[in-house]
Amino acid sequence: MKMKDISARDFWTARKRIAHFITRTPLVYSPALSLRTGCNIYLKLENLQEIGAFKIRGAANKIISLTPEQRSRGVATFSTGNHGMAVAAVAHKLGIKALVCMSKHVPSVKVNNIKRWGAAILQEWDSQDDAGKYCVDVLEKEGITIIPPYDDRDIIIGQGTIALEILEDFPEVDTVFVPLSGGGLISGIALCLKSILEDVEITGISMEKSAVMIESLKAGHPVELPEEKTLADSLLGGIGLDNRYTFDITRETVDKTVQVSEKEIANGIAYIMENHKMIVEGAGAVGIACALRKGAVAKGKNAVIVISGRGIDMETVKEILEERY
Amino acid sequence: MKMKDISARDFWTARKRIAHFITRTPLVYSPALSLRTGCNIYLKLENLQEIGAFKIRGAANKIISLTPEQRSRGVATFSTGNHGMAVAAVAHKLGIKALVCMSKHVPSVKVNNIKRWGAAILQEWDSQDDAGKYCVDVLEKEGITIIPPYDDRDIIIGQGTIALEILEDFPEVDTVFVPLSGGGLISGIALCLKSILEDVEITGISMEKSAVMIESLKAGHPVELPEEKTLADSLLGGIGLDNRYTFDITRETVDKTVQVSEKEIANGIAYIMENHKMIVEGAGAVGIACALRKGAVAKGKNAVIVISGRGIDMETVKEILEERY
Repeated sequence: MKMKDISARDFWTARKRIAHFITRTPLVYSPALSLRTGCNIYLKLENLQEIGAFKIRGAANKIISLTPEQRSRGVATFSTGNHGMAVAAVAHKLGIKALVCMSKHVPSVKVNNIKRWGAAILQEWDSQDDAGKYCVDVLEKEGITIIPPYDDRDIIIGQGTIALEILEDFPEVDTVFVPLSGGGLISGIALCLKSILEDVEITGISMEKSAVMIESLKAGHPVELPEEKTLADSLLGGIGLDNRYTFDITRETVDKTVQVSEKEIANGIAYIMENHKMIVEGAGAVGIACALRKGAVAKGKNAVIVISGRGIDMETVKEILEERY
Repeated sequence: MKMKDISARDFWTARKRIAHFITRTPLVYSPALSLRTGCNIYLKLENLQEIGAFKIRGAANKIISLTPEQRSRGVATFSTGNHGMAVAAVAHKLGIKALVCMSKHVPSVKVNNIKRWGAAILQEWDSQDDAGKYCVDVLEKEGITIIPPYDDRDIIIGQGTIALEILEDFPEVDTVFVPLSGGGLISGIALCLKSILEDVEITGISMEKSAVMIESLKAGHPVELPEEKTLADSLLGGIGLDNRYTFDITRETVDKTVQVSEKEIANGIAYIMENHKMIVEGAGAVGIACALRKGAVAKGKNAVIVISGRGIDMETVKEILEERY
């Protein structure tokens, strides 16, 4: 399978060149989930990346691809989350200047999470939208490269390198569960896997509300939705009305989508905490939440659940624990 | 360095033959600990082994070494913890019968933890000592192989394979912090590393009370101590008055020992939970506890902390969280 001029070779090339920037994460067997579902279920632990999320793969692949001229001018982004940390960390390792633009209202804990990876912070706006506009309207025109969070060829290919590692560790894989937001992660994984295997099923999972990609797929074109509070906050955000890559690739390569409730997400977080002793963010637990639904994984399947990140605060963890123990 | 007829080649041989049974665990950078100490600190995540602890390495290396005749007669152990799970899991994968002997008083949650890895359980005694005696006096005489937990050449070599992975991921390593109990883990790691590198320092860490190996080193011979309650319960147990390997190897190869308080262990657990979003057992956190002491890791060091396992119950986790958030 080849789409939007992305082929299997691109993933292998990316894998080789980002190796120095990423952790080659383990794929671990889940005896508890396997027993419960009658399947072989493995977890791909992207929460173990140094910055705590898979985003480092795409950011590395994108930033490495810049010309010396572009590198000397620096990079910028307006993400306050995992993508922001990823851009900061990769730029820092390469000795490239990175600027992250944010609204004045971003809480200091989030600001510091980005700052510690070595980025400069510019916090001069009243909204994230205005910060984003400044990136595109001012910085980009000054020659600074804006690193997009998902709708970009290099970003998609970078995230897709996860699929090569899955294949290496578990060649029997026949179904993969992937958190679904802007579609960068699932586009990369689905395109990579389907360029090699004919019979693998890909399921995208979002929260119940503000699931922009799923609503866009239903509508047949990118739509916008208001953002509602969710445990899976990393999955919030639009896909862009002028989406170039991820909407088409998701439509073509993703076999199923599932939406999980806030209660299911909390249960997913608790389940992986109890059974694997790992604390993951809500977005990272949606695959577990889905697999805990009766019949969601058909018996006998060789399944992989992608655990995307660990950006969760300890107060939320404590609340989830207190409800259960 | 070669001791007790163990050489560097043995570790490479073991690594190759146990590869199918273990997870090749990642070595992850700890930005928080590194910043705090002025060092480069990496964590070796043996808590990510399928059974939740490093013990699978030694058990795999030992059981693979059995003759077809020995395999057909089965294996046994009397460990109710990580070693018991390791023996059960390896035997199950090889299609070998495994029997775990326990006192009647072992709580059902511990019994089930072993049972789920496919072992048969025999629970007929009033004490663990009696269960152990039955293994040695009856089962061993019937031709069943008792898999010892630490004081065994193949076990030590199996645990030592961790060092090869550390070296591969972080060749600059110059100091390693290892939990210290019966000495199987630290003997393997120290012997392996020192057979390759001349200048690496090894520190063994135990809890304050019932630190049998540390007291034995002080006395110059193996001693016995009563067991006192500790968060690092996996580190409890003697080293055997007739110790054959680990006492001598630890004395020869371990540069320093440190004892950490219960409060420090709880802080270690909380620290890795908050900064790496992983839940580890008390024994797994003693290295973190040690590194959190001012000056415990000298500035500029390239340090690795071995995180040995994750066998902790959620009630304890909840207590540690509630005291802090």
